[in-house]
Formats: sequence, structure tokens, C-alpha cells
Amino acid sequence: MGQLTREQIKINKVKTSKIDSIDFNNLAFGQVFSDHMLTCDYIDGKWQLPQIEPFAPISLMPSAKIFHYGQSIFEGMKAYKDSNNDIFLFRPLDNVKRLNISAKRLAIPEIPEDYFMEGLKALLNIEKDWIPTKEGSSLYIRPFTFATGEGFHASPADNYKFIIACAPSGSYFAGKVKVLIEEKYSRSANGGVGFAKAGGNYAGQFYPTQLAKDKGYQQVIWTDDTTHEYIEEAGAMNVFVRINDTLLTSPVSDRILDGVTRKSILELAKAEGIKTEVRKIKVSELVEAAKNGSLKEIFGAGTAAVISPISGFGFRDQDFDLPEIKDTFGEKLKNKIVAIQTNKTEDPFGWRIKV
Amino acid sequence: MGQLTREQIKINKVKTSKIDSIDFNNLAFGQVFSDHMLTCDYIDGKWQLPQIEPFAPISLMPSAKIFHYGQSIFEGMKAYKDSNNDIFLFRPLDNVKRLNISAKRLAIPEIPEDYFMEGLKALLNIEKDWIPTKEGSSLYIRPFTFATGEGFHASPADNYKFIIACAPSGSYFAGKVKVLIEEKYSRSANGGVGFAKAGGNYAGQFYPTQLAKDKGYQQVIWTDDTTHEYIEEAGAMNVFVRINDTLLTSPVSDRILDGVTRKSILELAKAEGIKTEVRKIKVSELVEAAKNGSLKEIFGAGTAAVISPISGFGFRDQDFDLPEIKDTFGEKLKNKIVAIQTNKTEDPFGWRIKV
Ligand SMILES: Cc1ncc(COP(=O)(O)O)c(C=O)c1O
Ligand SMILES: Cc1ncc(COP(=O)(O)O)c(C=O)c1O
Repeated sequence: MGQLTREQIKINKVKTSKIDSIDFNNLAFGQVFSDHMLTCDYIDGKWQLPQIEPFAPISLMPSAKIFHYGQSIFEGMKAYKDSNNDIFLFRPLDNVKRLNISAKRLAIPEIPEDYFMEGLKALLNIEKDWIPTKEGSSLYIRPFTFATGEGFHASPADNYKFIIACAPSGSYFAGKVKVLIEEKYSRSANGGVGFAKAGGNYAGQFYPTQLAKDKGYQQVIWTDDTTHEYIEEAGAMNVFVRINDTLLTSPVSDRILDGVTRKSILELAKAEGIKTEVRKIKVSELVEAAKNGSLKEIFGAGTAAVISPISGFGFRDQDFDLPEIKDTFGEKLKNKIVAIQTNKTEDPFGWRIKV
Repeated sequence: MGQLTREQIKINKVKTSKIDSIDFNNLAFGQVFSDHMLTCDYIDGKWQLPQIEPFAPISLMPSAKIFHYGQSIFEGMKAYKDSNNDIFLFRPLDNVKRLNISAKRLAIPEIPEDYFMEGLKALLNIEKDWIPTKEGSSLYIRPFTFATGEGFHASPADNYKFIIACAPSGSYFAGKVKVLIEEKYSRSANGGVGFAKAGGNYAGQFYPTQLAKDKGYQQVIWTDDTTHEYIEEAGAMNVFVRINDTLLTSPVSDRILDGVTRKSILELAKAEGIKTEVRKIKVSELVEAAKNGSLKEIFGAGTAAVISPISGFGFRDQDFDLPEIKDTFGEKLKNKIVAIQTNKTEDPFGWRIKV
């Protein structure tokens, strides 16, 4: 099978763009969507050719398995545009590969890498004007696959749909982020699907997160479901902790997503001469460090949230506020990574891909 | 708010029924669907009036949260018809209540009980001819709710759709059922959503179940994700084990679904003078009992599978076949429960509801 070429992607453009109705200076996260999407159907045991079509409703039988058995996976990426109007992606192949890791675990057919990459590039060329350039804004890209095949038997579907949609977006969090360390509810099981970007992982977090919000926190930090003694990750971010001058993060596992931002930060920090440690982090260690003042920073890391400083955490009805310090690792690393992503600096790592 | 009345349910019937195209003598499970469905939309913070309409495609934005965050829950019920053409349901209120337990955990708005029950009854009256009467067949009923509200922010949707669809169905399993006791993969976490009928719980089982199928088993028996020492339940069934003359089943928990069939069997068995025990069951106990001959039966229990005898189990590359015995508890209890469901016997428990 040869590589997919751009010419094989059928394109059906909208008659009139809705771009003029969008206020690019006041973008929320993932609330408005661009004119077009890439779609690709898995039918008769194979992925058909991808095509670009208007972002519009899709039609599904009520018996489609997506409605019943949660067979859905997704990715989150961003596109950036520099002052030359060139488009850039950040480590996009890592997202393709992770989508296919998720696919395997959820018994969903893997998407050919060239269908994903060629399709995405073709889409971005058409949606170029939708990429915001305001600082802190970007075009959030959502590739996802779900079961369209029908049936009430609890077994994998026969047909699937892969879509890439785009949402010009502002920042994920508004304001300070305080987190609650959760001891009752869990995000994932040993031997479960926590390492996959499976839709069901997110729905399961909403109720506990709502309870945390009611108490004044914006996010939950999950702990392992067996002992609840170790911190794992946040709703849509990996978590970093700075104790004195060491930057810590938990090892990934079958319960924790292997975040692209997380691993980039680990490499960037090393290059910056920041001492890093990847090891399990006890909740008690965090509490102790907060008490004795050695806990300097906590931040979340993810494509959507970039690097989001955490201002404090709650644990067992006690609140621990973090000190306001200067020259944080979080700020420094965020500036570095954003500069690479937006083509404002060299990229010694080879992470930035020009579209 | 008064109770919903039948007259408030708007009905839009199909022009021509497709019933004549269905071979009621050769029904698979959940593969063909009746002419109509009940639908009900949650918009502007409240459930709108339910309506009955043709079973036909539904239209959704690609940004609807069902595609991204797995916000979906469901139930499984059956309708039966007796020789007088009367329609019966089995403990339907338990399904309504469980759907709302699932709803709460998945941050989905709860459906008013009268919308569900009145809507279902109205639907069944219209779909009466779709209820099979052949032994072992029934009308499988699938109530489900999913997120229609849009957005790429990982948070609960604002809008939802509740649907009840019907599928005239034959038996869930074809042939003997051999199960594999799973030690690596898990179905659910402590503090997770295993007790809910959440779509994502099922997708997560497909891949490990496929691996088991490749080895010649039809289903997986899940163990707890912490120690893998205790058996919990099967893919879509609770599990019963008979050791000598005692019938055992695991207690329900936040990882295990509180099955309607399971609790009915426990009551029926007691009424039949069968000794029952609800307690944790060690895998090692099962293996030991298989070896010393005290393990007489294993069966799965669920609405779809009714009572499905299990002919043997695999554990760590060893296979344990169960003896073929007469007068099994499984057979006896199955006959009792089916007779109650189909109005062939008295129902001292008050489980059977005439529609
Ligand atoms: C559960 C979870 N953890 C971590 C992350 C961060 O991963 P990445 O940096 O690849 O976006 C995400 C978001 O993608 C996530 O959903
Ligand atoms: C995971 C799981 N366990 C058990 C059951 C059995 O429950 P019930 O007897 O209520 O159908 C089902 C099916 O409904 C199920 O999906």
C-alpha cells in the first residue's frame, strides 16, 4: 500500500465561511468550531479514503454502538501560526501513535498514520485563517474515532468513523487553579483503560470533579485506586511538583496518560539544568513539604492547559496554599515550550513540524 | 408537577411497518430493531415531554460530548407476551432507579420515573406485535441517555437525549459458555464507575474479551483490580457458583453492577430452599473446589443472558471443566424466573408488571 497523497483527499468546501461571526479576541476553550472537518469511515473491514467536508451534523442510527458501549477515543493537539503565516504542529506523530495505542485497548481499528497526517495537513491548509495568533490562543485540534456500527450485543462494532475537527481556542482555565486531592473516587483501575484517551475515562471524572468544584476547587488530583496514597494525574493534565529545586512527576503506568507535554517538559527541564525525578509521589510527602516550606510549585501539564500553575491544594478538609514565588520553573518552562511551538525560537529537539 | 399522562406523549407513527421483513424464528440478539422509539430531550435545564417516533437516524454535531467524553448510560430490560396477548415487564422500576443511579455518577440528569414508565408502556402498546412469543425469545428493551451538548472542554454537557429502543431478540449466547478468569486486565476501579451501566465500562472489556475469545473462551470473569484474588462478575452478567449444595455470589460493590437478575435469583433460591451465601469468592477457592469435585455449577445471570450455564473456566493456562450434572440449580431457577416473567406461573414476589 502506497502512501496516501493529497490528491486522494476529496474536498467539499462550505459555500460561505462563518469565520466573520467569530470574535477571535474573546475565545473560550473548544466552544466554536471551524468551517471544515476531516472524516474517514471504517467500513467493510477497512478505512476508506479520508475527505474534507463542512463541519455539520452527522447522522447515526440510535443503535450505533457509540451510544451504548462507549467505544470512543480521541486526541488533543494544537496548531500555531507565526508572523510569516506558516503553520506549525507540535510532535504530531506522538498523537497519532497514542491514538492507535488507545485504539488497540478499546478494540477500535487503528488509523493509518498517513491518513491522519496527510488528512490533518490538508485540513489545516484549508482552515489556515482559523488559527488564532493572539498570545495564549491557538487552534485546538480534536481527532477522534467512534463506533458507528449497530447492535445491542456488548461486543466491538463493525464500523467506525474518524474525524478531525478544529476549534480556535483561548486558555483552558480562567483564573487561579486550586486542586483537591481525591481519596474516595478514582479515575482508573490497574489493568484498566486509564492510559488510553478513551471517552469513558472523562465522563467518570465529571461527578467527583463537580463535588470538588462545589467546595471551591477547579480540578481533582487523582490518587491510585488501591491505596489512595500516591498522586497520579489531574483531569486532563499530568502533574509536576517542585520540592526545593527538584522537579518531580509520577511515572506513567496503565492508569496514567503518557502526556506529550509531560515528556517534553522533562526533556526541556533537563536541557535547562533543572533537576528532575520521575518517581511515585506520596500524598503525605506533598503535605509534609507544604508544611515545612519545601514545596515551591505544583503545575499541571497538557496540550489544552499548556502549563497551568496550581495555587494550592486541598486534602482531607485542610487547604494548603502555595507560596507566590518569582522565577518559577512553571513559567520558565512554559515560555520555552510556547516559544518552540509558535516558532519564536530554535527547536533543538526537532519537535516542531511545519505543515 | 403532576404525573405525566399518556395523552401528553406525542406520537408519530411509521407509514409502513417493517415487521414482515423480520424472521421471528431466527432472531439473533439485539440485531433488528422495532418500528418506533421513545425519545426525550433534556434542553434548557429540563426534560421536555417524551414522544414516540419512527426508529430512524438521529442527527448530532461532531462536537456533541457523547463522541468525546463517554457521557452515556443505559439499561437492559425485556418485555414478554403471554397467550392472551398481554404484555409484561419484570421489575421495571428497578431499571428506572438504576438508570438514575448511573446518571448521578456520570453527571447526567436523572430521568423522571413517570416519563420513563409511561413512555415505555405507551411504546410497548404500539410495538406489541414486535414481542416474540417463541420460547427463549423476547423483546429486548434498551433505554439509554447520552450527551448531545457540544464542546471540547472536558466537563458535563448541557443537553442530553433519552431514548428507549426495542429489539426482538433470541438468546444472548449460542452454545456452551467457557469463561476465562482474568488476572491482568480489569473492568473497574475502587471508587470508579463499575457499579453504573456506563457505556465506557463495556468498551474497556472488549479487547481483553477478544484475547480470551482467541483462546477459546466466550467471556471473561473479572477479578478485583487490586489483588486479582477475588472473582467479581462477567462482561454483562453477575456470576453464581455452586459448591456442594450452596449457591454463592459476590456481594455488589462500587465495582460490581447490582443486577436485577442476581437479586431475583437470590430471593428465588431462598424460596426454593436452596442455601445461598453472598460473600467474596476467592479464585483459589474456585480452583480448589474444581479439583476436589465440590464445584458443581457456575452460571451467569443477567437480563440479556437470563441464566447461562458455564461449562468450564480457564485460569493461568489451565482449564477446569465442570461436571455434567442433572437437576442443576441453574436450570431450576431459570425455569422459575422465566415462568414468572412470561406469566406462566404465580408471582408471589410481585415482580411481574402488566403493561
Ligand atoms: C488524562 C490526561 N492526562 C494528561 C493529559 C496531557 O497529555 P498531553 O500533554 O499529551 O496533552 C491529558 C490531555 O491530553 C489527559 O487527558
Ligand atoms: C456488567 C453487568 N453485570 C451484570 C449484569 C446483569 O444485570 P441485570 O440482571 O440487571 O440485567 C449486566 C447486565 O445488565 C451487566 O452489564
